[in-house]
Amino acid sequence: MIQTILEHRSIREYKSDQIPSDVLSKILECGARASTTGNMQVYSMIVTKDQVMKEALCKLHFGQQMVNQAPVVITFCADFYRFSKWCQLSKAKPGYDNFLSFLTAGIDALLAAQNVALAAESEGLGICYLGTTTYNAPEIIELLELPELVVPITTLVIGYPNESPDLTDRLPIASVVHDEKYKRFTDEEIKALYYEKENSDFTKQLLELNKKETLAQIFTDNRYTKKDNEAFSEKILSALAKQGFIKAQ
Amino acid sequence: MIQTILEHRSIREYKSDQIPSDVLSKILECGARASTTGNMQVYSMIVTKDQVMKEALCKLHFGQQMVNQAPVVITFCADFYRFSKWCQLSKAKPGYDNFLSFLTAGIDALLAAQNVALAAESEGLGICYLGTTTYNAPEIIELLELPELVVPITTLVIGYPNESPDLTDRLPIASVVHDEKYKRFTDEEIKALYYEKENSDFTKQLLELNKKETLAQIFTDNRYTKKDNEAFSEKILSALAKQGFIKAQ
Repeated sequence: MIQTILEHRSIREYKSDQIPSDVLSKILECGARASTTGNMQVYSMIVTKDQVMKEALCKLHFGQQMVNQAPVVITFCADFYRFSKWCQLSKAKPGYDNFLSFLTAGIDALLAAQNVALAAESEGLGICYLGTTTYNAPEIIELLELPELVVPITTLVIGYPNESPDLTDRLPIASVVHDEKYKRFTDEEIKALYYEKENSDFTKQLLELNKKETLAQIFTDNRYTKKDNEAFSEKILSALAKQGFIKAQ
Repeated sequence: MIQTILEHRSIREYKSDQIPSDVLSKILECGARASTTGNMQVYSMIVTKDQVMKEALCKLHFGQQMVNQAPVVITFCADFYRFSKWCQLSKAKPGYDNFLSFLTAGIDALLAAQNVALAAESEGLGICYLGTTTYNAPEIIELLELPELVVPITTLVIGYPNESPDLTDRLPIASVVHDEKYKRFTDEEIKALYYEKENSDFTKQLLELNKKETLAQIFTDNRYTKKDNEAFSEKILSALAKQGFIKAQ
């Protein structure tokens, strides 16, 4: 188990081989064994195998070709629709049209997703998460016909790897672990934690390619800009309002 | 790996045995190997071992005694503070004071959490998630001294199990898996999916204990009420505003 976790790489090139249905079933079953708030299972996994659907999803994920290429794409959704429906059929009045319930259901969906990812990897499959899910939630909601109280939160592409990338670098563990209380790093400490990352050959190539002075500028100016973040914030908030998890502004 | 996933039980009774520090380090390392958006690692893991801190946390988690009892409690936080600080030190202007960035960081934190949970279980430890983290976020922020752009999203208690509960029931897998598009179940289908759960001996005992007619009423009237959900929604939204992820209303 730990070996599988430590050897995780995101895979972006896939073979055309299909995933045998018993393997896929086993992986999905693993998703359903994840911890879930009050055993409510307030999430859904939408499995896309159809090529036309994959191409439509691919566009919504900014044309990342692995969405077309991988045999299976799974969209994980926060889902209080089924549970609320069940309440209504059981003489119970559901009260899940609020932001806390969105978070609860989103947490459920993400724990299930990581179980699916690890189960897939332990079966020799490769995976990649698509952060773009929250960027284009309104369009994904339309394509997958998600009803009220269902919002997509993340997506996994899964298939047999056609590449074997190196392990990605990570910051020293002290960057992300705090003892007892949050430690506000000094400027010098931050510089030390990022030193290796900033001075790697990979970063030097990136800086040259992007004509930037610092690695951080590649994030703030190119990859995750304030302007994009603010625009996508508006989109996802409007999706949450449309799906009934927050009141419209 | 798959066996560990399928055998997951939430553990609520712990032995007093400490977790050896090399085991804890390995588990935390597993958290840091989870997928992370753009390799930004925008999460933090706050490790609580101190008894006084555990007791303070216990109160914020509604007195759930496992928080006092388990040797280690880890609060997983969405964290754009360290990353933004690094940007500022690198001639880059961070733009992560928005809702999309909160979601991005929350996703990072949850994938790390599930890696930690599974790594712990594979080492013979037991775990339990605390959904109460999002309920009392403002108080947890204060106790753990979380700076701006850091919000707690979930908590794990970890330790050696002092109970061996049965596997929890789950709905039939068809309840949570949809092919290609979201399937809106008919009333009859919903009733069929919940039939086994509603008619188990465990449910019958619960109904008698709670003096309720249906299982759903135990959720809507006792466990996750509309009133509580709305009050906690206000609290977490105000925490998001205070920490700088959304504009104050």
